[in-house]
Amino acid sequence: MRQFVVVGHEAPTTPEFSLDDLPGSGRLDVLCRCVVAGCLLSHSIRSAVRVHLVLDDAFTITVDSDEVRNLRPDERSTAALLRTALEHREEAIGHQPVQSSPGVTIRRTGLEHAIDTLAEEGTLVVLDEDGTPVDEHPPPSDPVFVLSDHLSFSDAERALLADRATATVSLGPEPLHADQAITVAHAALDTAGFDHGSP
Amino acid sequence: MRQFVVVGHEAPTTPEFSLDDLPGSGRLDVLCRCVVAGCLLSHSIRSAVRVHLVLDDAFTITVDSDEVRNLRPDERSTAALLRTALEHREEAIGHQPVQSSPGVTIRRTGLEHAIDTLAEEGTLVVLDEDGTPVDEHPPPSDPVFVLSDHLSFSDAERALLADRATATVSLGPEPLHADQAITVAHAALDTAGFDHGSP
Repeated sequence: MRQFVVVGHEAPTTPEFSLDDLPGSGRLDVLCRCVVAGCLLSHSIRSAVRVHLVLDDAFTITVDSDEVRNLRPDERSTAALLRTALEHREEAIGHQPVQSSPGVTIRRTGLEHAIDTLAEEGTLVVLDEDGTPVDEHPPPSDPVFVLSDHLSFSDAERALLADRATATVSLGPEPLHADQAITVAHAALDTAGFDHGSP
Repeated sequence: MRQFVVVGHEAPTTPEFSLDDLPGSGRLDVLCRCVVAGCLLSHSIRSAVRVHLVLDDAFTITVDSDEVRNLRPDERSTAALLRTALEHREEAIGHQPVQSSPGVTIRRTGLEHAIDTLAEEGTLVVLDEDGTPVDEHPPPSDPVFVLSDHLSFSDAERALLADRATATVSLGPEPLHADQAITVAHAALDTAGFDHGSP
């Protein structure tokens, strides 16, 4: 299983946003591209991938590549899936997930709870341009990559991640968009011969 | 200079398409993501990159990273730049380019003329999932990568490219979207220490 946690610092937590202005909707365009980069290949879908979008530290939407339906590569249709998830946010009680559509769930958790749960399922690795070069850190089995959206991690997030993560890794000399980083991480694992592991 | 030629088999050749339905507009969403993957980094723009979009073998729109303005990472705003280029298509006479906005030009050329011109500026390399693995083909200086959109190359295109290109290379074991392939190609060149060369 490959997992990606994307911290959406200004992401909307209600469904009242415009599909015509995703950048103006807390940069939801970034998060949509992360879902697509995480789950989709050309004409197929990766197996055993989960993308977790942490929205303003209040809700987390998870897209499971083995279960999701109607996920297409464009930003607008992906944003519509996320909007449907947000329409179900009131049903999310405690930390229990609510399924809004096949393979898409929403739960009332911020970053700390999300990564504490995921740390039990794999190896937490932060992807950040300030990290150590990826070739010094061979990819772990069952990685849980944590990335930030268009904004840098806050000091509190850095402290939390420093405490929980195994490593902070940079994928190359250039500062990549979050979705580009997901694409490069997948490609590195693919080329290294890692399969997606067990679901 | 790194250049990318993306063959848009069903791409629109007039500006009468809907920004609300880019997938339904000849998969213009794919071409928009290719422009962004080619030109943009997180909070910056790559130097010395050109992305050429061949539209239905009739027009070619070129985005020059050193000149373009108002290029943002989302599909919709990128599509608006392309629509503006198509609004100027009638001004494109012969093979002469017309600038529609800073760093964006349109010319009346299909794939053959486009790659014949570009072959003089760099080394033509086809990116295709059926190619030989990239680690057997170290990246050339001044690469001109040729990719297809969501459709495979036609037999005629394959014959043309086989005649003109130095190599057909696969970037990994999984079939990538065109924009993902551009991201991975850039990352491989970045990590190998290649700069973008001279403009």
